Amino acid sequence: MTVAERPVLRLKPKTDSRAIRHGAPWVFADEVVLDRRTRALPAGTIVTLEDAERRALGVVAINTGSKIVARMLDRDPDAEIGRDWIAVRLGAALALREALYDAPFYRLVHAEGDGLPGLVIDRFGAAAVIQPNAAWAELLLDDIVAVLSDLTGVSCVVKNAAGRARGLEGLDDVSSVLTGEVSAPVPVPMNGATYMADLTGGQKTGLFYDQRPNQAFAARLARGGRMLDVFSHVGGFALAALAGGAESALAVDSSAPALALARKGAEAGGVGARFETRQEDAFAALEAMGRDGERFDLVVCDPPAFAPSKQALDAGLRAYERVARLAAPLVAPGGFLMLCSCSHAADLGRFRTASVRGIGRAGRRGQLIRTGFAGPDHPQHPQLAETGYLKALAFRLMP
Amino acid sequence: MTVAERPVLRLKPKTDSRAIRHGAPWVFADEVVLDRRTRALPAGTIVTLEDAERRALGVVAINTGSKIVARMLDRDPDAEIGRDWIAVRLGAALALREALYDAPFYRLVHAEGDGLPGLVIDRFGAAAVIQPNAAWAELLLDDIVAVLSDLTGVSCVVKNAAGRARGLEGLDDVSSVLTGEVSAPVPVPMNGATYMADLTGGQKTGLFYDQRPNQAFAARLARGGRMLDVFSHVGGFALAALAGGAESALAVDSSAPALALARKGAEAGGVGARFETRQEDAFAALEAMGRDGERFDLVVCDPPAFAPSKQALDAGLRAYERVARLAAPLVAPGGFLMLCSCSHAADLGRFRTASVRGIGRAGRRGQLIRTGFAGPDHPQHPQLAETGYLKALAFRLMP
Repeated sequence: MTVAERPVLRLKPKTDSRAIRHGAPWVFADEVVLDRRTRALPAGTIVTLEDAERRALGVVAINTGSKIVARMLDRDPDAEIGRDWIAVRLGAALALREALYDAPFYRLVHAEGDGLPGLVIDRFGAAAVIQPNAAWAELLLDDIVAVLSDLTGVSCVVKNAAGRARGLEGLDDVSSVLTGEVSAPVPVPMNGATYMADLTGGQKTGLFYDQRPNQAFAARLARGGRMLDVFSHVGGFALAALAGGAESALAVDSSAPALALARKGAEAGGVGARFETRQEDAFAALEAMGRDGERFDLVVCDPPAFAPSKQALDAGLRAYERVARLAAPLVAPGGFLMLCSCSHAADLGRFRTASVRGIGRAGRRGQLIRTGFAGPDHPQHPQLAETGYLKALAFRLMP
Repeated sequence: MTVAERPVLRLKPKTDSRAIRHGAPWVFADEVVLDRRTRALPAGTIVTLEDAERRALGVVAINTGSKIVARMLDRDPDAEIGRDWIAVRLGAALALREALYDAPFYRLVHAEGDGLPGLVIDRFGAAAVIQPNAAWAELLLDDIVAVLSDLTGVSCVVKNAAGRARGLEGLDDVSSVLTGEVSAPVPVPMNGATYMADLTGGQKTGLFYDQRPNQAFAARLARGGRMLDVFSHVGGFALAALAGGAESALAVDSSAPALALARKGAEAGGVGARFETRQEDAFAALEAMGRDGERFDLVVCDPPAFAPSKQALDAGLRAYERVARLAAPLVAPGGFLMLCSCSHAADLGRFRTASVRGIGRAGRRGQLIRTGFAGPDHPQHPQLAETGYLKALAFRLMP
């Protein structure tokens, strides 16, 4: 379809277009005219966004079934959204990661932050995992994969459809291998450690790159000491700590497959002899270790999102406080406690308050030595920066 | 004076003591009974804080001439504040830095964050610069210096009385060398670079450790490229970038002595051939370079506090926006812009908004790749964490 033939989505007369002109990436349902013809457009259709005076504001991808009714693709209304356009955006994303990292293991595309709304791509050397979490990306998936293979030379692309966001966009949850073959698990070098990522096993056994700078800092804190990694997943903090010189690391998680991958990673990295695992519910393990009087020089808690939505905020904050209260007694005098949250709804201030309260309820006193976020391969759209989801607070508990 | 003989400072009956019981470090004038006898106590006197029911809440240092009328020293009301007590607190602060750094160059004591309210000590190898910014620390300065020398072995201690906080405490601004001799400037290794710190020259030619992690990140961004360090002081970002592999670095500052030290540092670090300086008002230099069409792969702006107080907030935010607007055009397509603020009054959200607006007014579009704060040798008291003064935002400007 040529630019002239594109359907039009129009703002309501009362909608202030300044936010969009200043770069806002999303348009909401109550801001636009949703007539019968517009509603009939398939989710993901590329349309021209106009203000009420018919001035073009840019090219957007429409999805009338979603709360986010349009996502800005290009503020140039004449932009053609096809392989060339995808290649420019993907190329810019790749250039950033090549400036940041020496090896091709990173989040290559971080959705709105890279000008590719709803699209997430993680790179694992010669393989990539793609999450088309917006309808337009699902429609153009073949083009995206072709450009991705062409630009990066990856020989294997896995589609991960397990993300919560896909349901909100009306997309299915069917994952598949799109090109090449997966020889799982893939060894991933990061922070001097080796991780094993099962690219087809979904979130439970994949690998997250977002904690990289926080894991590097934790590794420094753990040098020469005993560390405990609670909600360890495939050993993100534990293996970094061992690579950084920790005397020992214990990973606690309820998932046996995740712990098996952590073990494989430890052995691949030559630190298996200093690594232990404990398969158990994290809260139960924290309570049991507290009763047993166990002590570590560094304790890291990186739980799943306890407050994934505004509705879950109060319960989520209570859960974060509980984690802090149960973890603090396990920290040796003068040792370190790193508490993480990946909840969008719990902002930094609320999460910090819950964490400080939990430490206080455990009868301990801390100094906050570092506040960390997701790494730079997770860039933020400047208008969405408030919503940065990942926070990592490093406390030192007083002797 | 024994604990039993200590004067008492009492909360007003209507003052809620819960904040203090939960760890708040400060008591304000309107919260306490200020009778004639209390008002007569010399600033810095150690007293027992009691609630209205005469229950002891802890040991505080009083200063009835300050808005902060009392600073919590120890929540144990029986604590004796003397050399032994100072040694415990200073020893805990030293243990943290020794865990964090391989060489003795760091902020050793960060006031409330280290349980030593108002006291700041920076260590430069065998020398230390002490800022007793609260009256109690001024009174106990001899003890503090004795303990400091004993614990760390520093042979030279300089008192820096230039801080704004001393005026609020009613203290003078007379700096001096307390022990030993200063062979200025002192070479300081940090992030692979060598800096020259003039310990007796005051803020204009000293050295700040707080940007260490942000300088390390900037160094990574600058690899192989041309970088510009505006408001460079003694070359904090420029020398780190050169050590990290930048092709060239240009430092702009209005202070000739600061630039001379930057030059000395560059030569000591063996990167003098790739380093240039420009002595000029930073705004004027930014405007001139914009007119000349100059381009850099990384531009860093680390200005003095434009919003040092709430009164100065609006003007300060306009100044930060102006810095962003003038700096963004100097960034090559796909290059990086790091914008810093050391203003308490401009919180992270406001500073980010001003920065994003300035970039937009320059006709550029950025992605926010990192939000950084002061390094871990600047720990925060958990109840004062909102006031973290230093922010460093790293943007990548789209190609």
